[in-house]
Amino acid sequence: MASGNGTMLVVSAHAGDFVWRAGGAIAAATARGERAVVVCLSYGERGESASQWLAGKSLDEIKAIRRGEAEAAASALGAEIEFLDAGDYPLVATRELLDQLVHVYRRVQPAVVLTHPLVDPYNADHPAAARLALEARILAQAIGYEAPGEVLGAPPVFFFEPHQPEQCDFKPDVLLDITSAFPAKQEAMRCLPAQKHMWDYYSDLATRRGVQVKRNAGPNLGLPVDTKGEAYMRYYPQVTDVLA
Amino acid sequence: MASGNGTMLVVSAHAGDFVWRAGGAIAAATARGERAVVVCLSYGERGESASQWLAGKSLDEIKAIRRGEAEAAASALGAEIEFLDAGDYPLVATRELLDQLVHVYRRVQPAVVLTHPLVDPYNADHPAAARLALEARILAQAIGYEAPGEVLGAPPVFFFEPHQPEQCDFKPDVLLDITSAFPAKQEAMRCLPAQKHMWDYYSDLATRRGVQVKRNAGPNLGLPVDTKGEAYMRYYPQVTDVLA
Amino acid sequence: MASGNGTMLVVSAHAGDFVWRAGGAIAAATARGERAVVVCLSYGERGESASQWLAGKSLDEIKAIRRGEAEAAASALGAEIEFLDAGDYPLVATRELLDQLVHVYRRVQPAVVLTHPLVDPYNADHPAAARLALEARILAQAIGYEAPGEVLGAPPVFFFEPHQPEQCDFKPDVLLDITSAFPAKQEAMRCLPAQKHMWDYYSDLATRRGVQVKRNAGPNLGLPVDTKGEAYMRYYPQVTDVLA
Amino acid sequence: MASGNGTMLVVSAHAGDFVWRAGGAIAAATARGERAVVVCLSYGERGESASQWLAGKSLDEIKAIRRGEAEAAASALGAEIEFLDAGDYPLVATRELLDQLVHVYRRVQPAVVLTHPLVDPYNADHPAAARLALEARILAQAIGYEAPGEVLGAPPVFFFEPHQPEQCDFKPDVLLDITSAFPAKQEAMRCLPAQKHMWDYYSDLATRRGVQVKRNAGPNLGLPVDTKGEAYMRYYPQVTDVLA
Amino acid sequence: MASGNGTMLVVSAHAGDFVWRAGGAIAAATARGERAVVVCLSYGERGESASQWLAGKSLDEIKAIRRGEAEAAASALGAEIEFLDAGDYPLVATRELLDQLVHVYRRVQPAVVLTHPLVDPYNADHPAAARLALEARILAQAIGYEAPGEVLGAPPVFFFEPHQPEQCDFKPDVLLDITSAFPAKQEAMRCLPAQKHMWDYYSDLATRRGVQVKRNAGPNLGLPVDTKGEAYMRYYPQVTDVLA
Amino acid sequence: MASGNGTMLVVSAHAGDFVWRAGGAIAAATARGERAVVVCLSYGERGESASQWLAGKSLDEIKAIRRGEAEAAASALGAEIEFLDAGDYPLVATRELLDQLVHVYRRVQPAVVLTHPLVDPYNADHPAAARLALEARILAQAIGYEAPGEVLGAPPVFFFEPHQPEQCDFKPDVLLDITSAFPAKQEAMRCLPAQKHMWDYYSDLATRRGVQVKRNAGPNLGLPVDTKGEAYMRYYPQVTDVLA
Repeated sequence: MASGNGTMLVVSAHAGDFVWRAGGAIAAATARGERAVVVCLSYGERGESASQWLAGKSLDEIKAIRRGEAEAAASALGAEIEFLDAGDYPLVATRELLDQLVHVYRRVQPAVVLTHPLVDPYNADHPAAARLALEARILAQAIGYEAPGEVLGAPPVFFFEPHQPEQCDFKPDVLLDITSAFPAKQEAMRCLPAQKHMWDYYSDLATRRGVQVKRNAGPNLGLPVDTKGEAYMRYYPQVTDVLA
Repeated sequence: MASGNGTMLVVSAHAGDFVWRAGGAIAAATARGERAVVVCLSYGERGESASQWLAGKSLDEIKAIRRGEAEAAASALGAEIEFLDAGDYPLVATRELLDQLVHVYRRVQPAVVLTHPLVDPYNADHPAAARLALEARILAQAIGYEAPGEVLGAPPVFFFEPHQPEQCDFKPDVLLDITSAFPAKQEAMRCLPAQKHMWDYYSDLATRRGVQVKRNAGPNLGLPVDTKGEAYMRYYPQVTDVLA
Repeated sequence: MASGNGTMLVVSAHAGDFVWRAGGAIAAATARGERAVVVCLSYGERGESASQWLAGKSLDEIKAIRRGEAEAAASALGAEIEFLDAGDYPLVATRELLDQLVHVYRRVQPAVVLTHPLVDPYNADHPAAARLALEARILAQAIGYEAPGEVLGAPPVFFFEPHQPEQCDFKPDVLLDITSAFPAKQEAMRCLPAQKHMWDYYSDLATRRGVQVKRNAGPNLGLPVDTKGEAYMRYYPQVTDVLA
Repeated sequence: MASGNGTMLVVSAHAGDFVWRAGGAIAAATARGERAVVVCLSYGERGESASQWLAGKSLDEIKAIRRGEAEAAASALGAEIEFLDAGDYPLVATRELLDQLVHVYRRVQPAVVLTHPLVDPYNADHPAAARLALEARILAQAIGYEAPGEVLGAPPVFFFEPHQPEQCDFKPDVLLDITSAFPAKQEAMRCLPAQKHMWDYYSDLATRRGVQVKRNAGPNLGLPVDTKGEAYMRYYPQVTDVLA
Repeated sequence: MASGNGTMLVVSAHAGDFVWRAGGAIAAATARGERAVVVCLSYGERGESASQWLAGKSLDEIKAIRRGEAEAAASALGAEIEFLDAGDYPLVATRELLDQLVHVYRRVQPAVVLTHPLVDPYNADHPAAARLALEARILAQAIGYEAPGEVLGAPPVFFFEPHQPEQCDFKPDVLLDITSAFPAKQEAMRCLPAQKHMWDYYSDLATRRGVQVKRNAGPNLGLPVDTKGEAYMRYYPQVTDVLA
Repeated sequence: MASGNGTMLVVSAHAGDFVWRAGGAIAAATARGERAVVVCLSYGERGESASQWLAGKSLDEIKAIRRGEAEAAASALGAEIEFLDAGDYPLVATRELLDQLVHVYRRVQPAVVLTHPLVDPYNADHPAAARLALEARILAQAIGYEAPGEVLGAPPVFFFEPHQPEQCDFKPDVLLDITSAFPAKQEAMRCLPAQKHMWDYYSDLATRRGVQVKRNAGPNLGLPVDTKGEAYMRYYPQVTDVLA
């Protein structure tokens, strides 16, 4: 029922978030021939670019650097990418930004949406992005909302994993097997050289989530030893015609 | 990944529970050619047979009546059925009953498990059955537990809907489309003539959950007007290789 | 202690919400000779008027249609109605709208308040309306807030039932018997012809909640077979001098 | 609808619990001419009689002392009292004790039930008593359960306040005005001389809950300055025909 | 590890909040020779000054009175105090107010932060102040946020106790012994003569929390009979090198 | 206040649990000169010894192997160890086992207690062990409970981290720096050769929790790059005289 053969839309607060948290899902989708579109609400220029600030870069330089890195990472994942340049730290949810996102939904017509979870005590931009992604999705469903394009259906929404999952009330209810997509995710991570310490961190996390993929799938499925995983939370109930 | 082509095991506290709450899922499974096995821990002879007691039947007569009805209903759903006759009101979780259930798991080797949710302020047997079903599943996974048959894998567990879902902290995360299986569920319900008022009640519920199937699937999937549904909660995270 | 003989204030995000979710409570109050005032923050012109948009109506036409329907429904329930015309999809919580609501509280002096619950993943206007209703109530209690009329007391607040209750964390803690008020609710529902499919849906829901009224009241109270109900959640603790 | 003119049943783990936590509700009920029956599952002889153990009393002496105190306190509240002498620390939930409680329900036919909340990290007997009280209530409702007396209706259940409410997930949803019953509660407390430090503690608590009674009732009700209160949690939804 | 010898920052919605809820913690800190800085976002001129309004004071007079009282109370606690005069009822979270708070963090460099909890159904300003305090803390940590002063570390955040703790989902996870600081807190409370009824209320609360300090510390620590306490909730996990 | 210089008691369901989850805390305690006592309720002979069963060992052989490994691991951590041999899969909470644990508490007089968390959907023995540890602690506090030794104080209880923390509702509220104790933990892990794959898994976890130690402590504390951590949850509120 949920075919998975439509477009994936990823709403990311900052330029790098989609790589660490959802790179496997994106690469797996594009490897299946599906379209993936990443929308970065900001470049993460103030809140997630400490090394560039320490290196004395200007705001414009930092935004350009982050944009280039994100474009390279998206390319490694086979995804398109757009930047709304709404500013970060804080990411302010204006009526205009919400409207821009509605236009994205109407234009992209996603079959599935990925974004941040709604709680993050360490970063207020992440929940702000999630609220925008959710509210814009609802508005895009209404024929009475003026924006070009067809009215949106009801694409499922998945929250990707935050940096400190337990502190964000992140209880995974979907474990995604990203084993075959993992090389592409690694390549994308290497496009973000300023956060080199994250490469290992998120590779280890993929291994850890892979162990859980195997444990929850059961030994009978014959998954390989080096299974890699990503964790997600559904926001809406799954619709299906088979319990499995 | 979760293929759905193995055996479905349904652990039911009383003889009728599996019909009202999971009849659609069972009929859909057997219609796909899969095996379904229902295990009734008791006949519901004391707690869910008020009309027979009012009619002056003896305990043994009531158990025989309930058994016959449940067998007919299982047959209408295309399922096998077993009775452990452990007594109800209260259903007492003995070490022996737990062991019997482990043997069932080892013998049936289910690919998916259905049972009651863990909370029910109106019926203590239902959570007791759920705890037994969950604990026996874990024991059956251990090679060190002595019981015939292969060690169990990690079949997903789904909780079916209780009579007053909100009071049981039942927040559906899976909406199952049972439209094509609904006639079989209706036939099974009619095998329980003492609870005639439930026929309409659970038909209405199927319509209501069907509305939610359509709403959460989105208008684009072209589901029929009279879509029918059943609601479930997962106990373990879903393992998948596609987000959809 | 809670006498129930004062005025009921219903804060509704859109023009139709109060009918489906609280029509029974409103009709019961006015049948007891109490005053009921409905405040619609918007007409639901964009988000809940799909059939009119499909029929090619203009925004102003739609607002007039929805207003007329809501007035007729309020009349059927014996209630007064006001429209703040703040716009929907999105309903934006401005300082001015909040102030308008404080003025309503000061003028109406409600003894009880009904509004939407605080969570709704399918509609962001509903929680926005609830937050406004709650915050305005607090402001109206403060002598230092400049607005005409007496300072407000502490009227209890009840959240009425959303369309998908479990997904909105809606756990009813009050089951209201609306049996005698149900004909008036039906008449009010028929004032909303564009949502004809909702007539049956909310009649079935009244039956379902009526079953729970009977079940939770106990068989001894002799409630009729066709008892009808509505479900509510309290936001503040009940104050009483009898436990019952 | 919930008339409050039937019998109140109080299920107390130990001999003193009902005084501190529910003395006001009991005294108010008997002052209205209603019957109140307290059932103490144990005397609290091991877990709540430290001063007697320190004074070198024997187990039998302690049980006799606690029984005498509890009888005097019940008398001061106008209530009947029974002792099941099931032992405490730990209070073990046997099949026999459960059956004894079902017999109590069938005999007393309570219109309302008071007991401990289900969580208490400081005392395992309290939740054990609550679980027994709840399960026995359900069993007593079943015509198929063999015990003398009429089948039980559906009396509402209220949890009274534990010693450290926040640590017990105790969020009061009912604030009971016990102002007129407070002198009787004080007299009952003075029947428990070994816990003299509790007299002030629970008098202060009554004042504190009285402040909340006034705050949640609103200034318009004209409650006296020295309003006293007790806090409760409902286990089942309230059934009513007036929202107030 | 958590040495406690840095500066304490207290973010208070109104002029009096810090006294009732955190006066003990503040006095204890300054008694240890640490610096404490209180920031009042408003004077509480509209929402918490009922007696002055009743006495016919003007807005400016009330603000001056509240300021004077708060300065006296801060002085009694040995703390510095600042007023941002952002207005109350409602306290509106503007971009400018947020920026002002970031500047405070950068300037004060707190080692620990105290503020209101995030939930309060009786007062919307309190959660608004908490959200501002939390978001400003995060912004102050970012080198890319333009404001004078060093980048902030990761000071722990504690929520102090609201007036009706259970209704605010306030489950204390830190019980602070304020016995030696209690006289200073009493002196500070007496600086707020318009809320005289609160003196006893918060003295009783200190006794009650002191009982819990003793109960949770255990009898072996030899705490005095009249131990006084304040309750807090941590927002971030405790970092330590000893479990105790 | 919480001095940390008493004895640590670790209640472990199976022979290996204490190593993976609490090895760092134990080694840190003994390195400070404190006593640590581990009590294994079972050897994990059925549920956590798959490789030995596959190797054809008998039950008695497996128990001996597990005992030897656990003794070696305890020795590496500087801890004493006891085995109650109560059987696993299932670990049955008998009255006798509970009493044995009370005797342990009275004898050991722990200043701090470590055990499993109360929820684990993958292993029913873990919550069973936690419930036993908690209930025995309460019983040991009562002077009326007959067992040799002094009455117990109120040692704080910490839950150590389960294998799939998010699925066990494990939200760490204490992050323990185990950097200096980590070599001893590694040595203890190497005493469990049958679970070699766990060595890396729990070393990676220590790194991950170490990252969180640093992030939550803040950059100013100068923690080393390779900080290692363990995560815990408190069951009772922390008692302290400094907020830090």
